[in-house]
Amino acid sequence: MNVGVFGASGYVGGELLRILLSHSKVEVKAATSNTYAGEYVYRVHPNLRGQTTLKFIKSDPEKVASLCDILFIATPHGVSSKFVPRLIDSGVRVIDLSADFRLKNPEDYVKWYGWSHSSPELLEKSVYGLPELHREEIRGAQLVAVPGCMAAAGILALAPIVKSGKIDRTRVVMDFKVGSSGAGARPSISTHHAEHYSVVRPYKPVGHRHTAEIEQELSLLCGEKVIISMSAHAVNMVRGILSTCHTFLNETISSAEVWRMYREFYSGEPFIRFIKDVKGLYRYPDPKIVVGSNYCDIGFELDEHANRLVILSAIDNLMKGAAGTAVQDMNIMCGWDEKEGLRYPALHPI
Amino acid sequence: MNVGVFGASGYVGGELLRILLSHSKVEVKAATSNTYAGEYVYRVHPNLRGQTTLKFIKSDPEKVASLCDILFIATPHGVSSKFVPRLIDSGVRVIDLSADFRLKNPEDYVKWYGWSHSSPELLEKSVYGLPELHREEIRGAQLVAVPGCMAAAGILALAPIVKSGKIDRTRVVMDFKVGSSGAGARPSISTHHAEHYSVVRPYKPVGHRHTAEIEQELSLLCGEKVIISMSAHAVNMVRGILSTCHTFLNETISSAEVWRMYREFYSGEPFIRFIKDVKGLYRYPDPKIVVGSNYCDIGFELDEHANRLVILSAIDNLMKGAAGTAVQDMNIMCGWDEKEGLRYPALHPI
Amino acid sequence: MNVGVFGASGYVGGELLRILLSHSKVEVKAATSNTYAGEYVYRVHPNLRGQTTLKFIKSDPEKVASLCDILFIATPHGVSSKFVPRLIDSGVRVIDLSADFRLKNPEDYVKWYGWSHSSPELLEKSVYGLPELHREEIRGAQLVAVPGCMAAAGILALAPIVKSGKIDRTRVVMDFKVGSSGAGARPSISTHHAEHYSVVRPYKPVGHRHTAEIEQELSLLCGEKVIISMSAHAVNMVRGILSTCHTFLNETISSAEVWRMYREFYSGEPFIRFIKDVKGLYRYPDPKIVVGSNYCDIGFELDEHANRLVILSAIDNLMKGAAGTAVQDMNIMCGWDEKEGLRYPALHPI
Amino acid sequence: MNVGVFGASGYVGGELLRILLSHSKVEVKAATSNTYAGEYVYRVHPNLRGQTTLKFIKSDPEKVASLCDILFIATPHGVSSKFVPRLIDSGVRVIDLSADFRLKNPEDYVKWYGWSHSSPELLEKSVYGLPELHREEIRGAQLVAVPGCMAAAGILALAPIVKSGKIDRTRVVMDFKVGSSGAGARPSISTHHAEHYSVVRPYKPVGHRHTAEIEQELSLLCGEKVIISMSAHAVNMVRGILSTCHTFLNETISSAEVWRMYREFYSGEPFIRFIKDVKGLYRYPDPKIVVGSNYCDIGFELDEHANRLVILSAIDNLMKGAAGTAVQDMNIMCGWDEKEGLRYPALHPI
Repeated sequence: MNVGVFGASGYVGGELLRILLSHSKVEVKAATSNTYAGEYVYRVHPNLRGQTTLKFIKSDPEKVASLCDILFIATPHGVSSKFVPRLIDSGVRVIDLSADFRLKNPEDYVKWYGWSHSSPELLEKSVYGLPELHREEIRGAQLVAVPGCMAAAGILALAPIVKSGKIDRTRVVMDFKVGSSGAGARPSISTHHAEHYSVVRPYKPVGHRHTAEIEQELSLLCGEKVIISMSAHAVNMVRGILSTCHTFLNETISSAEVWRMYREFYSGEPFIRFIKDVKGLYRYPDPKIVVGSNYCDIGFELDEHANRLVILSAIDNLMKGAAGTAVQDMNIMCGWDEKEGLRYPALHPI
Repeated sequence: MNVGVFGASGYVGGELLRILLSHSKVEVKAATSNTYAGEYVYRVHPNLRGQTTLKFIKSDPEKVASLCDILFIATPHGVSSKFVPRLIDSGVRVIDLSADFRLKNPEDYVKWYGWSHSSPELLEKSVYGLPELHREEIRGAQLVAVPGCMAAAGILALAPIVKSGKIDRTRVVMDFKVGSSGAGARPSISTHHAEHYSVVRPYKPVGHRHTAEIEQELSLLCGEKVIISMSAHAVNMVRGILSTCHTFLNETISSAEVWRMYREFYSGEPFIRFIKDVKGLYRYPDPKIVVGSNYCDIGFELDEHANRLVILSAIDNLMKGAAGTAVQDMNIMCGWDEKEGLRYPALHPI
Repeated sequence: MNVGVFGASGYVGGELLRILLSHSKVEVKAATSNTYAGEYVYRVHPNLRGQTTLKFIKSDPEKVASLCDILFIATPHGVSSKFVPRLIDSGVRVIDLSADFRLKNPEDYVKWYGWSHSSPELLEKSVYGLPELHREEIRGAQLVAVPGCMAAAGILALAPIVKSGKIDRTRVVMDFKVGSSGAGARPSISTHHAEHYSVVRPYKPVGHRHTAEIEQELSLLCGEKVIISMSAHAVNMVRGILSTCHTFLNETISSAEVWRMYREFYSGEPFIRFIKDVKGLYRYPDPKIVVGSNYCDIGFELDEHANRLVILSAIDNLMKGAAGTAVQDMNIMCGWDEKEGLRYPALHPI
Repeated sequence: MNVGVFGASGYVGGELLRILLSHSKVEVKAATSNTYAGEYVYRVHPNLRGQTTLKFIKSDPEKVASLCDILFIATPHGVSSKFVPRLIDSGVRVIDLSADFRLKNPEDYVKWYGWSHSSPELLEKSVYGLPELHREEIRGAQLVAVPGCMAAAGILALAPIVKSGKIDRTRVVMDFKVGSSGAGARPSISTHHAEHYSVVRPYKPVGHRHTAEIEQELSLLCGEKVIISMSAHAVNMVRGILSTCHTFLNETISSAEVWRMYREFYSGEPFIRFIKDVKGLYRYPDPKIVVGSNYCDIGFELDEHANRLVILSAIDNLMKGAAGTAVQDMNIMCGWDEKEGLRYPALHPI
C-alpha cells in the first residue's frame, strides 16, 4: 500500500515517517513540505539519517493523491478542510491529524476555532479516529480525524466512568501537563530554551480548544451533555502528556468496582495499560514510561475525604496523541494487525 | 540577635543559613546536624563556600537555646514536638518549619500523620506562621509554625475567594506541581536523576497531609468547613510549586470583582504579586519567575463555559514555602522591616 | 536460541531485555537479580509492562547456563571473573558487559581497577567485542567482552586517524560528556535530582578506568603506544555520550583526506553514521539524535589555527555503549543479520 | 551616580538591571530597547516585577549620555563601535559588554569577526575589563571592554599556569560547556526547547571568536604567543559555563606547587574560589554552584599518566561572564567596595 504524508516536516510528520518507514505493509511515496521541498528528509528529522534517502516535495494534493492509497495529513489547523473535500471524490483514504474534521457540529468551529467550516457536509462523513471508541466506524471510513493529543489522553481516562453515570458530569476537572513537542517545530519566545526550561507554565487555564472534542465524545458516550473544566500547563520535558482528571462521585463506589468498569470497557485493547501498583516506583501513569510507545496508561485513586475519583492517564503526545493513533487507524482501515508498526516498547530510563 | 538552626544540613536548613548569614540584624550562632557535626557548612551547602566558615554541631537543644534568642527548626516531622516543649519554658522564641505545631486539632495528627501529639497543649499556643493571615498573632508569638510549602501556595491562592463565600466550598480542586527539592536532600530511587528527569509523577493523587492545614486555615477564614481535593505531582525542576486551583462559582462574578477582592485582601502585602497580564510571555504565575525570591505570585482566569474560577499561585518552595516565610515571621516577631534579608529578586532566566 | 541475562535489574540489563524480547531469533529464558528475585521484570523496568510477564530469578550461574545457549552478563565489575571461568568449560557462549575480560594485560587490572584478575588465562581467549575492529574474532568467540560505554565512543572516533599515524599519539585529549544513566540504577547523592539537574560535573578529570581499554585498542591498531588524556563530565541528560577528541596533527591534512580515511575505515559498517553537514541544525554528532538507536555518529573539524583535528562521536550509552553492541556481537557470533533487533531509529525530538 | 544600560532587553541587559537596581551607589536613569521602547521593563524581565516601574526608552546615545555618568552597553557585536567614539569625547565613562573594544589588534576584528573596526585608535585606549588581570588600568579607565563569557572563564583558569611557563603554550585545549542563556534572548531553531533539551551540541568545535581575546590576554601575560585549541558545546542548562582546560607540562610539577601558584596569583581576589576538595559532592568547579553569584570557581588535577594538568573553571555566564564583571569594573572605576551589589551567594540547590 502506498502512503503519503502532508506537512511532513513538523514533529507529527516526522513521527509518522519514522513509523511508516519501518511498517511492513506500506511504502512512503510522498512527504510534502513547502518550506523544505527538495531537501533530504533527514536534514529536518535527524533521527532518520541512514534510514531513508527520501526528499520532501511541494504540497500538490492531486499529485500526491494520484501516487498514494492513503494520505496522512499533518498540516496546521484550517488547511486540510480546503483541499481534502476534492480528494475525497477520487476515492483516496484520508487520515487527518489536524482538527479540521474532528467536530461534528459546524458551529463548534466558529466557537472554538474562530472560523466557519467550508465543507460542513464532510463532518458527518468523517469518523473520530479513537479506536477504543470508534473501531467499527474506522474500519469502513474513508476520512478519519485523529483526536487531538490532550483530547486522546483525556477521553481515554474518562470514558468508562462518564459512561457509568456515577460522576457529576458538570464538574469534571482535567488538568493537563504537556511536553514542549506539543507546541510544534516552529521556534517562538515561549519555547525558547532559556524561557521554557524548568517551567510550569499555565498557558491555557481556560478555553482550550480540545474542550470541544472531549465534550463531544463524552456526551455522545453517555447521552447527556458533559461539561469539561480543562486547564493546560507546559512543563519541562519534550514528549508526553499527563492528564489528571478530578471527578466528583454521585454515589459511593469501591476501588474494585472502578477497576472492573475500566477493565471491561477496555477489554482486549492492545494499547491500554492499567497502572495502579502497590510496589515499585511507577504506581501511577507517568509520561516518562510511555515515551516512544503507543500506550495510553491509565490509573486512578479514590478520595473518600472529598468524595472524589482521580483518574490519571499518560501518553506520548506524538504517538498515541498523534502519529501512533493515526497508524493504528490505518491498520484498522486496512484490516491489518492493529499493532503493526507500533510494537516498540517505551525507552527507559530516558 | 543570635539565632540557631536545627536540622541545618537539609535543603530548608541550607536556605535558612543562606538568608540568615546576610541578614543585617542577626548572627548565626549554631547550625546543627548530627550527621555532619564537625564538618564545614560549605561542604554540604556548596553555595556558601567563601561566605562562612561555620561548622555543624551536634543537636543539643538546651545548649543551642542557651546561645540563641531565636531558634529555627528544620528537622523532619515528629522530631521537634519532642524537645520544643521544654525549651518554651526557657523563654527562647521558636520558629518551627516542620509540621509539628501547625495543626490545632490534636486528632488531625493521628488522622494525617499517624501519630499522637505529645504536647497538645502547645498547639493552642503556637501560631500558624502565614503572615498574610496571622500577622498580628505572629508579632507576639513565642512559637510559630511555618506553613507547609504546598499549603502556603494553596492557602494564599484561595483565601480571598473562600472568604467571599462565592465558591462551592466542598469541591475545591488543588492540583500541585512540585520541584524535586521538596523531597529533601536524602537520595532515593524516586529522586534518582535517571528516574526523575522529564517526569510528571502523580506521587500523591489523594490523601496528601497538607490537606489538613489548608482546610484548617480556609475553614477558619470563612467560618464553615472547607473540603479540599488535593493532588500533588513531581515535575522536572528543582525549585518551585505551581498550585492550580479549580473552583466552582455559586454565583456569577466578573473578572473585575475578582481583581478587587484579591487586591483588597492582600493590600500592602510585600510579597504578594498579581500576575495576570495581556502581553508578554509570563501572563500567569509560573515558579520559574520566583526562583530565589520570597514572592507568592497569584493570578486567575474565569471560565464561563464551566462556571469555574481557576486561581493560580507560584512560589519558590524553599523560600515563601519554607525559609523565606520563616525569616519573614522572625522579622515580624522582632519588629523589623518585614523585607529584611528577603529583598532579592528572582533570577531570570534560570 | 535461548538466552539469559545476569544482572538484569540494572539499566544495562533492562536495555538488554528490551532488545532481546523483540529479537526474532532468541527467547529470553532467564533474567537474574538477587535483589528482585520473584518480582515481575516490569516492576523494575516499567517500559516492559505489557511486553512480558517474565520474573527475575536468583543468580545461579550453572542453572542459568543449563537453560541457555548464550549468556549476557551485566553485573558490576569484578563479579563475572569469579564465575565465568567455570561456565566456559560447559561450552556456553558468554557476552560480558562488565570490564572483567576487556583488558589483555592482567597487570592493567591491578593498575586501573585495584584488584588482581583471578583467571588471567581467559584474558587471551576473550575477544574485545567492538565489531568495527574485531568482527572476525567475534564470529568465532566463546567469550566476548563488550567495550565500556565511553571507550566505545572514543575508540570509534579515533581509530582511523590513530591508525593513519598522522597525529601525535602522546597528546590525545578525550573530553567526555555523559548522561546520568551511565551511573547505574542505584541512587546516591551525586545522582540525586536536585544535585544532578543542570550540572556539568567533572567527576573524573583524570584517571578514568576506560583509559586502559582505549589505549589498549588504539595501540594495538597502530602498533605503538598511544597515550590518552581522558576527562569525564556528567551532564543533565539521561542517555548519551558525546566524545570530543582533540588531536594534534603531525603533518598537514585536508578535510577531504580525513573524510576518505574515515569512510574507508568504516566502509559497510551498519551502525556508523557520518555527521558533518553544512545545512540544518545537526551538523555534528549529538547524543540527542541517537537516543534509542545503535548508531555511533562521527564527525570532525580541522583547526588550522592550532594545527588540530577535532573528532566528535556520539552514542546512546545503553545501546552502542552497552546492550546494543552486545546484541550486535551476538548476531555476529550466530551468523545472523547484524542489524537484527537493532533496526530502530532514534526518537526525535526527545 | 547615574547609570544607563544600552540593549537592556537582552539577558545581559536584564542581569545588569537586576544588579544595578539594588546597588547602593547608583540610580538607573535609562534602559534602552528599540524593540520594547515604552514598555515596562518587568514585561520583558519578569523577575523585576515589583522591583521597578522603569520603562524602556529608544536608544539615543547622546540623550542617554547626558543623563548618566556611566553607560553600560549590552548591544550585539558591531553596534557600539559606531556610537561610542563620539560619546567618549563628552567624558562619560563607558563599560562595554560587547566585543567591540576587547581586541587590541584591529586586524583581529577582520580575522575573527569579519569586519574592519571603525575606530581603531580607541582600541589602545580601552581596557580589557578583567579585574584579576587589569585592576589598576580599570581604575583610571574611561572605556572598559568586559571580557566574553567563555574568555573570562578560560583566562582565569589558565592565567597562573601560562604565566609560569610550565606548560606547552602551543597545545592548550579548552573544552567549554555552555548554558542556553549564552545564546541570547532571541528564539531560533537551535534554542527551541524540543531541540535543545538533553543536548550536548558541539556548536563551535573550532574557530570560536573568543579564541582571539584569550590568546591576546594569555600571550600578554607570558610574553610569548599562546595558541588556544578551543571548542564550545551547548548543554542542557540555562546559566553557566564550565571550562575544562587540558594542558601538557614542560616539566614535572607537584600538586602543592600548582596550589601555591594559583593561591599567590589570586591572593585577595574577592570573587575567585578554589574548589578542590577530598570530601563532599562538589570536589571540582561546577556551574551549578555559582548560579546567581559573581564567583569564578577554579580547580585542577594532575595527570601523571599523560603528563597533563587539567584546570577547571566555572562561572555564571550572565554574572562573572558579563553583568557581574561589568559591575565589578564599575566599582573599581568609582573606588567603591569591589563587592558592592555582588555579595549574593549562589542558590543551591537550583
